[in-house]
Formats: sequence, structure tokens, C-alpha cells
Amino acid sequence: MIINKPIDMHLHVRQGDMLKKVLPETTSQFAGAVIMPNTIPPITTLEGVLKYKEEIQKVSGENFTPLMDVFLQDFTEEEIRALKDNIFAMKFYPDGITTNSESGINSIEDIYPTLELLAKYNIPLSIHGETNGSMLNREREFAPTYEKLARDLPNLTIMMEHISTKELAELATKYDNLKATVTLHHLLLTLDDLCGGALNVHYFCKPTVKLATDRDALQELVKSGHKNVMFGSDSAPHPLKNKFKGAAGIFSAPVILPALAEFFEGDESKLQRFISDNAINNFNLNVVDKSVELVEEEWVAPRMVGEVVPMFAGKRFNWRVK
Amino acid sequence: MIINKPIDMHLHVRQGDMLKKVLPETTSQFAGAVIMPNTIPPITTLEGVLKYKEEIQKVSGENFTPLMDVFLQDFTEEEIRALKDNIFAMKFYPDGITTNSESGINSIEDIYPTLELLAKYNIPLSIHGETNGSMLNREREFAPTYEKLARDLPNLTIMMEHISTKELAELATKYDNLKATVTLHHLLLTLDDLCGGALNVHYFCKPTVKLATDRDALQELVKSGHKNVMFGSDSAPHPLKNKFKGAAGIFSAPVILPALAEFFEGDESKLQRFISDNAINNFNLNVVDKSVELVEEEWVAPRMVGEVVPMFAGKRFNWRVK
Repeated sequence: MIINKPIDMHLHVRQGDMLKKVLPETTSQFAGAVIMPNTIPPITTLEGVLKYKEEIQKVSGENFTPLMDVFLQDFTEEEIRALKDNIFAMKFYPDGITTNSESGINSIEDIYPTLELLAKYNIPLSIHGETNGSMLNREREFAPTYEKLARDLPNLTIMMEHISTKELAELATKYDNLKATVTLHHLLLTLDDLCGGALNVHYFCKPTVKLATDRDALQELVKSGHKNVMFGSDSAPHPLKNKFKGAAGIFSAPVILPALAEFFEGDESKLQRFISDNAINNFNLNVVDKSVELVEEEWVAPRMVGEVVPMFAGKRFNWRVK
Repeated sequence: MIINKPIDMHLHVRQGDMLKKVLPETTSQFAGAVIMPNTIPPITTLEGVLKYKEEIQKVSGENFTPLMDVFLQDFTEEEIRALKDNIFAMKFYPDGITTNSESGINSIEDIYPTLELLAKYNIPLSIHGETNGSMLNREREFAPTYEKLARDLPNLTIMMEHISTKELAELATKYDNLKATVTLHHLLLTLDDLCGGALNVHYFCKPTVKLATDRDALQELVKSGHKNVMFGSDSAPHPLKNKFKGAAGIFSAPVILPALAEFFEGDESKLQRFISDNAINNFNLNVVDKSVELVEEEWVAPRMVGEVVPMFAGKRFNWRVK
């Protein structure tokens, strides 16, 4: 089957040598990707955006569209006007719980003036929505905040990133301006994969994978093809030595298309919608005109990419990218 | 404060060099311990029991009482008669989910004839009670099996080992013949300690630590001092390299008494009951006459013991063993 313009709506590609190793795993399969700004230092300015984009494009070449994010700041209207044509969205961490996300802001209502400006300039707000609660509940507890934002700011497009719970799967179809990305790992894994047998450090991420009821709700949502729902891998490589120290993040980039082809049981149109059409339609995205062919042939996922162990390392798939 | 005859009712001491490294962490603090039989090969015969006991006593010397367990087998009455004065209990894994527990038996009713013999010879049955269910529920799902055994075999003393859930905390006070051991880690930790922040491989064990509601129920049970409830550490050392491969087990032995003194806020009589009196009274245990003094002085838990990282490595305590 042929997938036109596959887009990863949530991707970590890091910097320097790591970027050079991991980015090709995406550019070989995707036309574009939304690039997370949690670099060191974090991306918080137009200058930072342009410099990071340049670093990415030196590795990717022309046949790939990086869609840049910047961390939400207390920007002036002038700054937002300058940013708007150079970014896809602004990223907001309600709390500093993921890698290099120290630039998070803590109070939602404090930032309404800035959010009104985002709405005015048609810039989406991308949210890692979790409270400081217990690991199983912290995303569920954030649901009312998502709803409040969707209602209070009807002209702002809000992206609920990497949703992992039944509650958010249900919320994803309730508001036109409340979109959702779903990762490969939240679609396929549960806590039992992380720590029900041997502990698998490579399945540890934030938000953590959840219960079977959550995974099943996400599968149903994704299979429904609802326009609000888009693929975003949250692929987040860490060197093996950092995984042993407890780093959160699953490096799924190398296995995304074969794994999704299996998940959709070869249904080309459903995969097309989830991995491209919904995103393009929701945001009028403009990415390079790249198609990817998937063939029904055995393929084995790589065991290592540089210093990183990918998701499903060594697993056999029935589909491969040609 | 002085604790008389502290006893660890559930302990893994391994074999060979590992045993030599880890056993002194227990013998320096405890008068006796129930020794788990999951060696390689597992302890399934009187000969195996005696050989393992000899290995332990070579390291411990005379001032420590190892209370030996053997894996439950389809023993003849003659074998059970021969075993009874040489063991404390028979260990039963309903499913082969913990380290070297391949000797588990799968059907409960199949083994009733053997269990009747245990009751006849007054040998306790020690159970790792979990189903093959999801990690959060597999112990809760085993509760009806515990109740069935307690009712069907009123003359058999059953030990629910390392209980980790609210459901089993409630069950622990319902039957005279259904006892429970509680570990240090299930008493103090939750899933958030394992994977709510950075992933902490040293807090991974089976049964996994659970939710705050479970931990709180265990704390309440232990503080109640109920006679059915005894301390059993399930201290289970693994070399660091195996922890990185996902091995389940927390090596709590070095920190038990300081951590429990803090947990009981220096209440000597409650600690005495939990860590010794209840066990001695429930089983008429005969262990060496050893007392341990705890003094209210700062103490820092070791960062490594041989190749093993202990629980609470490097943590400061307000109590130390004198």
C-alpha cells in the first residue's frame, strides 16, 4: 500500500550526534514531523526555532518538512507575529515532568492573555496534560482543564498530546477545537508490558502506559478514524545508559509504519487518515510531497540505533517500508 | 530500644558468593529468618533442605536460626514425616512467576490430599498468591482462593506471603488459620515510587508495589498489631546487571530495623509485636536468644552491598542498629 505524506505530529529528535543517528529513522518514513522544543537549552525564541530548524534540515535535506514548536512563554503580540510563520504550535507543559521541560508554566488562567493571542494568530496550543497526581490518575485529572480551555477559548485549537487514558479518548471527540495525538506505544502497550513480567525499561515513558481498558479505548478511538485524532509518536530516544538511570521515553520511530500497518490489518485508508489526512485537514498543513510504500513482507525491527534500543527491538513484522 | 528475637518471616539469601555477601546483613540484625527455597536447583527434598541449611550455617554461625522452607511437592506421608522436624513450612507458588519458582503446581484442589497431610503434621503452607491476571489485580484476584483454602482446611495454617493490596489487608484478620506477612517495601512504597518519576529499577518486585490506598491499608493493618500479621521482608538481592535486565526483587535486608523504627515512630512494643512476638506466638517458634538494640542516631543506608544496590541506598535514617 501507498501512504501519502505521512506525518508524525509529535517527535523528539534531540541534538548533535543523537539527532544525526535518530532523525533518518523518521525522514525515511515520513514527509514531515512536529518537532518538540525540549532541547538543551529549550527552544523559547524565534532565533532558537530557526537555529534548531537549520540543524534538522542539514541532516534531513529538502525532502522532509520539520514543523517547529516553541515553548509557550509570556510573549508580546509582536513576538507572536514574528513567530507565527516559523512555527507550527506552542508547547505547554503544565508541570515540569518530562525531559528538559523546565520551561513549563504553572497556572492556566495566568496565560489566558497569551492564549487569546495564539487564537488570534491561529497558532495551535500543544499540551502535555498531567497533574502532579498519582501516575495512574494524573492525566485523567487533567481532563477538566482541557475541557475548560476548549470552552473558554473556542477560537484556540488545543492539542491533547499523547493521550493515554479512556477519559481522554472520550474527550477527544467532544469539541471541534480539542484535538488529540495518539502514540504507537499507548495504542499497543499496557502497564503489564512495562512491569507485569520482567521490568522493561524500554517501555517506560511519560505519560506511562496505562491499563487494558485505557488501551482498548484508544484503539477504538483510532479505528473510528475521527477527524480530531492524529498520529504523534512521541518517539523519544535516550542512550541505553540513561534508560538504566530511569529516563522516560520510548524510541518508536524505526517501527512506526510496520507496526501501524499491522494494527490496521493492512487497511490503507484508515492508516492514511490517522497518519496524515486528519492532520493536514485540521491544520492545512503544507509538507513535502512524499509517498511511502509499505509491502507485506517480513521485516525485523533493529536491535539498536546508535546507543538507543528502539521499541519492539528485534520483533518480526509482516509489513516493511519499501 | 531493645528488640528481642527479631525474625524475618520471608527471606531470600541465594547461594555461594552472593549468600556470603547478603546473609550477614540479616544475621547482624535478626535472630532468625524463614529461608525461601528458590535456589538453583530449587529445594524440593529433605536432602536439599539439609544441604542448604548447612551452607547457611557455615556463614551465619550458631547465633542465628534459619527456618527452612521446601517447595510443596506431591510428597508421601513418609516423606512429610521425615521433613516435618527439619522445615518450618512448605512453599507454594500457584504460578511460576517469581525467581526460580519453576517448581510451582497449578491446581489447588489437586493438592488437597497433600495439604491434609500438612495439616495433620502441623506444617504451615506458605503461598505466593497471585493469578495470571493484570499486574494491579492478580493478587486481589487470588483472595477467593485464600478464603477457600482457609475454610476448606481449617486445621491447616496458611501464610499469605508479602501481601500488597487492600483486599488482602482486609482478609488478613478474618480467619484464625490465615496469616499474613508484610514486607518493608509494600508498607512504604507505591507505583509512583517505581515509575511515577524516573523509573527506579530497585523498587521493582513481585508482587509489584501498588496504589496509595493499598499501602495505606497495609500500614493500618500493621499498626493495629493484629496477631495474624508478621514481618517478612521478601528481601531478594539481584546483581545490578540483572536489575537492568528486569529482575524482580528488592534487597531490603540492610535497612529493615532502622526503617521500621521510623515507621513505628519509635514505638518499641508495636515493633516488637510485628517483628517477633506474633510470629513466635503463631508458630511456637524456637530461635536463638538474640536481642538487638536500636539507638536514635543518624545512620546512612549503604549504597552497595557486593554487586547489589539495597533499598533506600544512601538514605538517612534517624535510627541505627547498635
